Amino acid sequence: MRQIKAALLGATGAVGQRYINMLPKHPYISLDVLMGGESAGKQYGEAVHWLFSDPVPDELAKARVKVARPESAAGCDVVFSALPSEAARDIEEKFAQAGFMVVSEASTHRMDPDVPLMIPEVNAPHLKLLERQGMKRKWEGGIATTPNCTVTGLAMVLKPLVERFGAQKAIVTTMQALSGAGYPGVPSLAITENIIPYIKNEEEKVAKEAKKILGALRDETIRPHDIPMGVSCNRVSVIDGHTETLYAEFDEEIDPRDAAKALADFRGPPQKLKLPTAPEQPIIVRTENDRPQPRLDRLAGTVPGMAVTVGRVRNGIDGKALQLTLLSHNTIRGAAGTAILTAELMEREGYIG
Amino acid sequence: MRQIKAALLGATGAVGQRYINMLPKHPYISLDVLMGGESAGKQYGEAVHWLFSDPVPDELAKARVKVARPESAAGCDVVFSALPSEAARDIEEKFAQAGFMVVSEASTHRMDPDVPLMIPEVNAPHLKLLERQGMKRKWEGGIATTPNCTVTGLAMVLKPLVERFGAQKAIVTTMQALSGAGYPGVPSLAITENIIPYIKNEEEKVAKEAKKILGALRDETIRPHDIPMGVSCNRVSVIDGHTETLYAEFDEEIDPRDAAKALADFRGPPQKLKLPTAPEQPIIVRTENDRPQPRLDRLAGTVPGMAVTVGRVRNGIDGKALQLTLLSHNTIRGAAGTAILTAELMEREGYIG
Amino acid sequence: MRQIKAALLGATGAVGQRYINMLPKHPYISLDVLMGGESAGKQYGEAVHWLFSDPVPDELAKARVKVARPESAAGCDVVFSALPSEAARDIEEKFAQAGFMVVSEASTHRMDPDVPLMIPEVNAPHLKLLERQGMKRKWEGGIATTPNCTVTGLAMVLKPLVERFGAQKAIVTTMQALSGAGYPGVPSLAITENIIPYIKNEEEKVAKEAKKILGALRDETIRPHDIPMGVSCNRVSVIDGHTETLYAEFDEEIDPRDAAKALADFRGPPQKLKLPTAPEQPIIVRTENDRPQPRLDRLAGTVPGMAVTVGRVRNGIDGKALQLTLLSHNTIRGAAGTAILTAELMEREGYIG
Amino acid sequence: MRQIKAALLGATGAVGQRYINMLPKHPYISLDVLMGGESAGKQYGEAVHWLFSDPVPDELAKARVKVARPESAAGCDVVFSALPSEAARDIEEKFAQAGFMVVSEASTHRMDPDVPLMIPEVNAPHLKLLERQGMKRKWEGGIATTPNCTVTGLAMVLKPLVERFGAQKAIVTTMQALSGAGYPGVPSLAITENIIPYIKNEEEKVAKEAKKILGALRDETIRPHDIPMGVSCNRVSVIDGHTETLYAEFDEEIDPRDAAKALADFRGPPQKLKLPTAPEQPIIVRTENDRPQPRLDRLAGTVPGMAVTVGRVRNGIDGKALQLTLLSHNTIRGAAGTAILTAELMEREGYIG
Repeated sequence: MRQIKAALLGATGAVGQRYINMLPKHPYISLDVLMGGESAGKQYGEAVHWLFSDPVPDELAKARVKVARPESAAGCDVVFSALPSEAARDIEEKFAQAGFMVVSEASTHRMDPDVPLMIPEVNAPHLKLLERQGMKRKWEGGIATTPNCTVTGLAMVLKPLVERFGAQKAIVTTMQALSGAGYPGVPSLAITENIIPYIKNEEEKVAKEAKKILGALRDETIRPHDIPMGVSCNRVSVIDGHTETLYAEFDEEIDPRDAAKALADFRGPPQKLKLPTAPEQPIIVRTENDRPQPRLDRLAGTVPGMAVTVGRVRNGIDGKALQLTLLSHNTIRGAAGTAILTAELMEREGYIG
Repeated sequence: MRQIKAALLGATGAVGQRYINMLPKHPYISLDVLMGGESAGKQYGEAVHWLFSDPVPDELAKARVKVARPESAAGCDVVFSALPSEAARDIEEKFAQAGFMVVSEASTHRMDPDVPLMIPEVNAPHLKLLERQGMKRKWEGGIATTPNCTVTGLAMVLKPLVERFGAQKAIVTTMQALSGAGYPGVPSLAITENIIPYIKNEEEKVAKEAKKILGALRDETIRPHDIPMGVSCNRVSVIDGHTETLYAEFDEEIDPRDAAKALADFRGPPQKLKLPTAPEQPIIVRTENDRPQPRLDRLAGTVPGMAVTVGRVRNGIDGKALQLTLLSHNTIRGAAGTAILTAELMEREGYIG
Repeated sequence: MRQIKAALLGATGAVGQRYINMLPKHPYISLDVLMGGESAGKQYGEAVHWLFSDPVPDELAKARVKVARPESAAGCDVVFSALPSEAARDIEEKFAQAGFMVVSEASTHRMDPDVPLMIPEVNAPHLKLLERQGMKRKWEGGIATTPNCTVTGLAMVLKPLVERFGAQKAIVTTMQALSGAGYPGVPSLAITENIIPYIKNEEEKVAKEAKKILGALRDETIRPHDIPMGVSCNRVSVIDGHTETLYAEFDEEIDPRDAAKALADFRGPPQKLKLPTAPEQPIIVRTENDRPQPRLDRLAGTVPGMAVTVGRVRNGIDGKALQLTLLSHNTIRGAAGTAILTAELMEREGYIG
Repeated sequence: MRQIKAALLGATGAVGQRYINMLPKHPYISLDVLMGGESAGKQYGEAVHWLFSDPVPDELAKARVKVARPESAAGCDVVFSALPSEAARDIEEKFAQAGFMVVSEASTHRMDPDVPLMIPEVNAPHLKLLERQGMKRKWEGGIATTPNCTVTGLAMVLKPLVERFGAQKAIVTTMQALSGAGYPGVPSLAITENIIPYIKNEEEKVAKEAKKILGALRDETIRPHDIPMGVSCNRVSVIDGHTETLYAEFDEEIDPRDAAKALADFRGPPQKLKLPTAPEQPIIVRTENDRPQPRLDRLAGTVPGMAVTVGRVRNGIDGKALQLTLLSHNTIRGAAGTAILTAELMEREGYIG
């Protein structure tokens, strides 16, 4: 298999660090170029406030961070963007114009009608938007995005519930990890022995992005799914792993065992293609009463952190309602991991390389 | 005003301690008798694993814990029970037979058709069940109960939503404090940097008890309210204060400002009677985005910890749905405080003394 | 008793908020003027990111924050400064020049030879430095300072050990609360389920300031105490309350009971003068094995948070060594409380008003 | 290399689980027999309250837990004991009498004069005690022990300081993790947002065990090292990893760089013998100001969790004193890992197999 050379925008941030943590183990994507803002010119190991117990891989620690402009990424096949949203708009477009395929974690372009918002297991066909995007924007490259960290696990779980059982409504309450707010993020004085019942703009994003991801591609546009969603987002004192309770309504009675089976059996193109960052089983269903738990389940999956864990699958207020709890790792499945998986899919489909 | 002499069953437990913390400041209820199981015969101050920063009041610290039997409470007007449910059945009935009025936090009798399950602001008329209870059980005394700590705040918030706006459905996710599990309760290894998405029997209790509390008294029985409820209970690493997200549906459009006003304006008999443990405003509505928070709001109210705090009142998936977050102190409003308030109401209504 | 009018510099910061929390209950100091930097011109209630559960007192919430210059404090008898150290240098001196007596929490002037570094129970005579200061600097006002939050409890405990038993060496390890770092302070991602074994410049400050406080006033200078000190400072995930282990060596055998008695019996001028912010017993000695604990003991004292709690008083490696654990509230006894107590002492001694 | 068959006593406890977690990856020790008390007769996977995110290895999950008696371990070469101390006395001796070599984590026999207390890097020659033990006790097998989890890292760090630089005194304050107390262990209500400044019997154990480990073998006995030690033990809200501050005194000036080098260069027999559980570098010295931190450094080492991390190496009150902070994983280096390493050394020395 050919080698993919990757560049990384926003290398020192909390999301950027996860790429540094994951990519050096990748079988065919090499991380060749690190780019940053204030950190440009410094050695990566000195510029970063490193958050993981695994140290920065030696070679990358010594790598010089480059200025975030297309010239810096010359020769690369793909550019991962872990930029904050404000910075992303200008910078990512410049890379796309210059011919680079950008896979971005930023929220900036997620809802653009010609930009795919990808969870490869859920909406692989949406990559086709890239063709319309190229024509419309006259870019030689392009921008593909991945969703908000809270949406990823939820959309994966909704997919079989919507498609197989026709879910009609989804009421979601999230309990989100600290790493979702980046670094320095949430002050310890604000969250220790506490809950913050609000995350700015998050609830709107969750609903809008989930509908786009679950939407159908018709005539080169995504028709968003029309499932009504009520979302309440909370921050809790957990390092990694977003936990979400889901209440869903259906037109007919639904047997929780059938739902659990459909979730456990769910597979997407990444599994069929055996992409290296694809977990064998994207949704793991636990039958113990007290799972999923972030500390125990966030690294679930044959690719650690890439499987969503579901538990407590039960009926809701009546037989036509279903309740469950889901958990996904917000900086792996909810960020870098899904972006890398998207790049793998794009490579297979000929969009990269 | 006359003095009420009180005895306390289960004085050393986590809930029992809250009575020791609250009653010595009471204007007319004096805590004269402490009763316990293994602690019987010891001085209270030595028998208890005290959990609060306020020390045990001196007089009670030196009081001798008595055996849990009616003779121990001779001369008392009311017996508060903070017993665990298993112990409660036998012991509480013995006190009722012996002529004592028992106000109990235990779940044992809560759902008995002739036992009132009291939140004085919400269902004061239910006290009438005590009359039927006395006749049926041939007890000279009686048993009144107070709800599960998770229900209290929720039922108070649902009351005006159901009565004024006809709420048709309630989907609730809770994030419950550690003190709700008693002492030693939840192991630190289980909950630190974690969430446990399950509390045994809790979800069933929340739905059942809320419906009874919101129910109407007809022909000496409670007809439970029929609002469908879906409940997901979670334990989080917070010392005190249960946080709950509520999604409610209505037949017609509901303006969140009207709902907020109805909540803030809600008053019950305890407010009208100016009972000493009644907060002036039972439901405090905050308009900041990021409230209520357990560490900041659990002691809300003119009687600290007796007011429920509501925030984030907004529409849900459409104009006919409402979403909000509520918080109540689980061992004050959710336990000892509501029991003391119930005793105050019972005294006014002639059931005590 | 006459009224003292106070102004506050740095009113919106974490330390400043503690003054807002404490002073409105004061019998004769009124907080008349709030001053700030970026917050100047706004209403205090809107400018502050308030950290306590007790709300901002209504009157102060509506007060307009003024620009931090002497004109703003016209008519005030004392100026409390909760400024960060960098900002303090210029601003505080301007107030002193303009004739104000400043009581400052900032580290800027603490080690100046003509500036008293005050813990009223420990070194009341040091206030005399203000006279030399006035002459030397040609200021009509003056600056008195209070120590670093970690020093206060330690110096109070060392005082009787040094004076009565001649302690020869002190080895200290601290476990410091989050609020000591201000707001936003320590990122939650850095400290959750973790310890940070370092606080910038803290260890040097602790040793230097303790020696000055324990020093003797001779010929209008402080001769610092010469006790050798080894200090290791750690940040832990506790909201309020610094815990410290102390190992001390003596020339002769020391009976821990004698040491405990000396600590419990320790009183200073504030107790004799019955100053309103003085706790009746400045050092509370607990005999239980597992005290002091920050959550249970930080608010100890007849003035909550103003007493230091000591426990585990025992011999060290031999009879000539003593070990103990001490705890003090870092933003009350370690900051605002000691500053207010210092102002009370200054008023009595004629330096204010 | 020959295969070693191992049995495990106390398989379901918190320490026992760490063996289940570590041994299946071992190159030549196979875990063939699991033994327990109440869990005997059940499948391991059902009997255990599993604490790790890595699941129980499949084969062991299905293994039937056997009764804790010698017959159960027939055919095994070594018996690891993760029993609580009370249970250990009788049971371990029975195994030793029956001819098994027991490597025990229990405190029961640690201080017996004929029982080695092993940290293979520090006191490999102490294994010789097994010969005297066998003769004296007429056992065909024997008992070797490993130290308290707090001692291990400390003794490793003291070894080069004592031997190379002649450390004369050690003052230690620990901040110990929750997992050191087992499961359920410390109640969350007791430790959340708190510190407990006491761990029963721990301080005595740390001093006594460290002196034995650092002692010299002469005439078939250990002459304990005579370094005076003052120890203060604290429990903090950290899952894994004991942090300790060390203040040490020396006869002469000590350059912290020399001390740091001696620590980093320290190697023992396990490194020379390239034992599989031996980390290449037993003590890792960090130069950043803010390390070691439990969450970042507890899994340090080429064998994760087997290296001790040291930081903040600096002089103390003068040039003859040294201060540093050390961290070691309490259930790996401080328990199961050191026991497995001891078994590896015993196999090489002919005591096993």
